[in-house]
Amino acid sequence: MQTLAIGIDIGGTNTVFGLVNRRGEILGQGRINTTGHPTLAAYIESLAAAIAPMIEQAGRSAIAGIGVGAPNANYYTGEIYQAANLPWKGLIPLARLMEEATGIHVKVTNDANAAAIGEMAYGVAKGMKDIIMVTLGTGVGSGFIANGQLIYGHDGFAGELGHVIAIRNGRLCGCGRKGCLETYASATGIVRTANEWLENPELETTLRPYSGHITAKLIQELASAGDAVAIRLFEFTGQILGQTLADVVAITSPQAIIFFGGLAHAGKLIIEPTQQAMEENLLVFYKNKIALLSSALPDADAAILGASALVW
Amino acid sequence: MQTLAIGIDIGGTNTVFGLVNRRGEILGQGRINTTGHPTLAAYIESLAAAIAPMIEQAGRSAIAGIGVGAPNANYYTGEIYQAANLPWKGLIPLARLMEEATGIHVKVTNDANAAAIGEMAYGVAKGMKDIIMVTLGTGVGSGFIANGQLIYGHDGFAGELGHVIAIRNGRLCGCGRKGCLETYASATGIVRTANEWLENPELETTLRPYSGHITAKLIQELASAGDAVAIRLFEFTGQILGQTLADVVAITSPQAIIFFGGLAHAGKLIIEPTQQAMEENLLVFYKNKIALLSSALPDADAAILGASALVW
Repeated sequence: MQTLAIGIDIGGTNTVFGLVNRRGEILGQGRINTTGHPTLAAYIESLAAAIAPMIEQAGRSAIAGIGVGAPNANYYTGEIYQAANLPWKGLIPLARLMEEATGIHVKVTNDANAAAIGEMAYGVAKGMKDIIMVTLGTGVGSGFIANGQLIYGHDGFAGELGHVIAIRNGRLCGCGRKGCLETYASATGIVRTANEWLENPELETTLRPYSGHITAKLIQELASAGDAVAIRLFEFTGQILGQTLADVVAITSPQAIIFFGGLAHAGKLIIEPTQQAMEENLLVFYKNKIALLSSALPDADAAILGASALVW
Repeated sequence: MQTLAIGIDIGGTNTVFGLVNRRGEILGQGRINTTGHPTLAAYIESLAAAIAPMIEQAGRSAIAGIGVGAPNANYYTGEIYQAANLPWKGLIPLARLMEEATGIHVKVTNDANAAAIGEMAYGVAKGMKDIIMVTLGTGVGSGFIANGQLIYGHDGFAGELGHVIAIRNGRLCGCGRKGCLETYASATGIVRTANEWLENPELETTLRPYSGHITAKLIQELASAGDAVAIRLFEFTGQILGQTLADVVAITSPQAIIFFGGLAHAGKLIIEPTQQAMEENLLVFYKNKIALLSSALPDADAAILGASALVW
């Protein structure tokens, strides 16, 4: 009776994992550092050792498989490719290495795709067949679900909303191109906007004393406390996110767009201006029928649940 | 043995139809005018009368169904909604009317989606599972296929590439918004560009004597004859089409993009600058692996084949 799955989420700092049943209940979980291992092999060894007691406890024959969510992970090849936020460069054959270390079948996908699957299986998108999952973290990730299936694309690299051009010839992006959505609508992007605005010495804001050390969380706190500039930073960010989403909606016509990750924790501060800008820019067919939702799953749980749902 | 389907393509001027077998062979075809009927009911009656002999000849029991491609037709509802190029306004319950008139099950979809299905079933996309079909006609239509399935979206209105914003605050579009791709990269769009350019009296071109009566076909002919301005018109159009496609590719990561319709007949004149602009603007993951292809199906056949393939 293979009724359990192990979900692993590899983040830039931590790797979290959990044992999950088919109902999406996390029966046990743990974490190891992603960084600080001398080699990739040492990291894989640590990870396999950390989940071994979980496998023993559940009984190996009860485990249907291991699902892994990781930045730039490819569902088809099982590999991670050029992940800027991970300590290992180049091509990492993650699925193969984990299978060798555990003897259990492993499926991988990128973290945003895993979140989309988790949200559809266990979250606010339960029962929906057409959604866009948008992760607003250090970058902007996305998972597109159409006809109830994740769109992986021909090569497994579909769903790069963060690298859709929001402002042509706009800000330089880490990908080498200019104006990508994630240079504006991520936690990093809103900080970049704040730093640009603070170059104007006449701008009055409670952000000023933090100049040089501004974070998205700080902007959220000061906006919640009523700072007009901090509020406008979210409005500006939502404007760009909303008008870009209006274009993307014309491709997949989703029932809902679900936000997840650091910047999404700002809730109404980011979602209201995003929704307003999206509606203003939508083709008439799509107006007033797409729900903008915040993920209701706790961050750590969502990552584990999404990764585990890959197995089913 | 239901081995045959009837495919119907409703265009602004003509309605073409054909009897098609599962191998995509057109066993018989015909056409009626789309316009000139006093009422919608009269049009439906004429169409049903025109295909009746085809049904009789094949034997009613051999017909698996009727598939219809029409502008703004919705697969889920069977309705046509606000089609600017058809003589009937508002909401037309096309599937229901045709079922009542013929006694045969009817499925409808928009013309670009039908073309995508036809191309995958019988054309250059045979065997592919992830493609974008782009129709470059009076407007720009599109059909997105992912995981081997057409993306209809939550409400059946997915795939409106023509209304993705190519130039923010650009040309006024028939949809009421500004800068839609189809205001630039359609047969109408390239003519609009030509007319704008000809406002410069110093521009030397063999297009000049045709001012006020320029068509996309004329621009193609003069470009083929070596007119530098006509060639630049295609380059400009391809630049905008290519950079917009580079964004869209990041959503579905297709194996190929297939062009169809009036402007696509210009072949290399439009496809080469489109490919160059797309490649220049692509995220590194997608570079040098997406084929840009012209449909190899004759226009009339493709429409009938695509519509008929809805039945299977």
